[in-house]
Amino acid sequence: MTFIGKPLEAIDTPALIVDMHKLEENILRVHRATFDAGLDIRPHIKSHKTPEIAQMQVRAGAVGITCAKLGEAEVMATAGIEDIFIAYSLVGETKMRRLVALAKRTPRLSISAESLEAARQASSAFDAAGIELDVMIEVDVGAGRTGVQPERAVAFADQVAEMPALNIVGMMGYASHFAYTRRGEAALAEGAAEEGRVIGEIAGDLAAAGHEMHRISGGSTPTAGRYQEGCGLTEIRSGSYVFYDRNQVDLGAAPMEQVALSVLATVVATPTPERAIIDAGTKGLSQQVGSVSDGYGWLPEVPGAKVVRINDEHGFVDVREAVRPLEIGEKVQVIPARGPTCVNLYDWLYAVRGGVVEDAWRIAARGRNT
Amino acid sequence: MTFIGKPLEAIDTPALIVDMHKLEENILRVHRATFDAGLDIRPHIKSHKTPEIAQMQVRAGAVGITCAKLGEAEVMATAGIEDIFIAYSLVGETKMRRLVALAKRTPRLSISAESLEAARQASSAFDAAGIELDVMIEVDVGAGRTGVQPERAVAFADQVAEMPALNIVGMMGYASHFAYTRRGEAALAEGAAEEGRVIGEIAGDLAAAGHEMHRISGGSTPTAGRYQEGCGLTEIRSGSYVFYDRNQVDLGAAPMEQVALSVLATVVATPTPERAIIDAGTKGLSQQVGSVSDGYGWLPEVPGAKVVRINDEHGFVDVREAVRPLEIGEKVQVIPARGPTCVNLYDWLYAVRGGVVEDAWRIAARGRNT
Repeated sequence: MTFIGKPLEAIDTPALIVDMHKLEENILRVHRATFDAGLDIRPHIKSHKTPEIAQMQVRAGAVGITCAKLGEAEVMATAGIEDIFIAYSLVGETKMRRLVALAKRTPRLSISAESLEAARQASSAFDAAGIELDVMIEVDVGAGRTGVQPERAVAFADQVAEMPALNIVGMMGYASHFAYTRRGEAALAEGAAEEGRVIGEIAGDLAAAGHEMHRISGGSTPTAGRYQEGCGLTEIRSGSYVFYDRNQVDLGAAPMEQVALSVLATVVATPTPERAIIDAGTKGLSQQVGSVSDGYGWLPEVPGAKVVRINDEHGFVDVREAVRPLEIGEKVQVIPARGPTCVNLYDWLYAVRGGVVEDAWRIAARGRNT
Repeated sequence: MTFIGKPLEAIDTPALIVDMHKLEENILRVHRATFDAGLDIRPHIKSHKTPEIAQMQVRAGAVGITCAKLGEAEVMATAGIEDIFIAYSLVGETKMRRLVALAKRTPRLSISAESLEAARQASSAFDAAGIELDVMIEVDVGAGRTGVQPERAVAFADQVAEMPALNIVGMMGYASHFAYTRRGEAALAEGAAEEGRVIGEIAGDLAAAGHEMHRISGGSTPTAGRYQEGCGLTEIRSGSYVFYDRNQVDLGAAPMEQVALSVLATVVATPTPERAIIDAGTKGLSQQVGSVSDGYGWLPEVPGAKVVRINDEHGFVDVREAVRPLEIGEKVQVIPARGPTCVNLYDWLYAVRGGVVEDAWRIAARGRNT
């Protein structure tokens, strides 16, 4: 049976839903603000893993896309995306063989470089294949995740530049500490500016040492659409702005009305007047990451109802402060704490417009985690 | 390419690995202890979602299996499992249509009943189909999740007994509060005994009221293999004992040496001497549920190395207390905090024996969450 053309409530639950109008608006708004600042946008697709959405982003002016996993990039290349950046350290023989094969069928492919070991492996593999690979020097700009330490950036780039098959085309940093520690419009705009200053300064050092800086890449979702002209970056990699989620709302990145993603769930039990149980738990809503928001799910149509606890297959909705009780069999939309980990649990994404199912998209890069 | 017959290290990462010897030992040990107590085992398969493992459990004497989701049950029926219990409230027209279709191809199917609304829907659907359905009365025995409150159990069963197509065959309870709040052998054995007393007493009330109690069902993993003869139960639904995980080790349910499940990951970066980064984060290891264990992953071959933080695709390994440093490109086995949510992230499970890949199993019920 198909759900297309039917009301949202016809979908069997739990199911992942995207509001098409909000999705389109989110893409247009963030892209327009980025273009107005004279910057490129190269969205990270790990948030949605869905070729149809990547294609919407490209049609809305994205210069290309960013992937974390080689498996995601393979899916997106097959879907016809022509400019792909893999912002992830790829190491090992299997990964190198797959990377060369991908490069041969992708018009513009680039990867990040942050260790001599990984860079040498890539250079050898591409040299043997007789082709070259564009690389972005990854610098740890303070988030303490991956990337060479800033004081080693120039020396590292000098060594990469010596490798026969690699072309340095720019640098990248991930500055979550300038985004996820801030709350509200002014603080997020200041975070975007600080990120641009820090990354731009290191890019300046690299350029002064003779390395081409065609692309200076940053970005995260709370700061998406908040980068200014001359900020020090040329390219923004934000991704979750397509959907937003409760964490982003609580950070002040977007109002609740702009959240495009929800889980459609059914109330399966109302064992006590205080508690309703829905059929989405850790395997349908995911745990939140970090501690931005207090809870696991929010019911926008039933203000006051909140998922306060989750087991594998059960969501515990506290209805004590809800505007009305929930009834067994009722279908409810639930806003997740964090979108990307929630999307990663589903095989299908239902595109809904005005309460009617418009399309069902395979989340084709889900599970492509190697 | 196939990895079968190759060394474990040949598998591309991140990948989910099961140690076959430990898996077989875990199943045998728990089943034997359960049989020795004169009890049936009906393992919950939501922990592994893999038909090959369900079949191992049946070959090792399981009377049948337990599923949470109808989609899981459909997969297991297709794989030839003949006795399936769905311990979950099923409501709605689509679910009823699917449930009737499943009953027609499953020799022995039963479900739980905990609300009049859901029970009436099932009775109508089965009555219309001209077949009957076995139901287990679900009682909330103190975990505060689903189930009718104990004082309403007999009245509820009386009403279900009036429904034309439903046969009451027993009762079930889920008593996580007697298991996940205990630590160590003696406390867990006492938890198992308390669970049996509480569930057995309610079953006694139901039997006294004239309801058949062929099956009195309980069970969780910390208490698996710890139920005694005459404990009040007849059937144990534990599931995660096939693998165990770090949470179970910290609860005292099993020693670390019995943990059969791990994630094979690659060290992709060593940005500082304190920190190594592996290619498994929230989408490869999952968040832990609750707060039993302090961290997200443990490296049994590198004592002292622990995953202390996870992003979507990055695991941060603190190596300050590790017995040796980690090297870029190195493949490491990582014990997850919680197995079932971790399994739910992967499409394939690699069966490894003595360091050699013996088989690759599709986790066929993953994503079957409706």
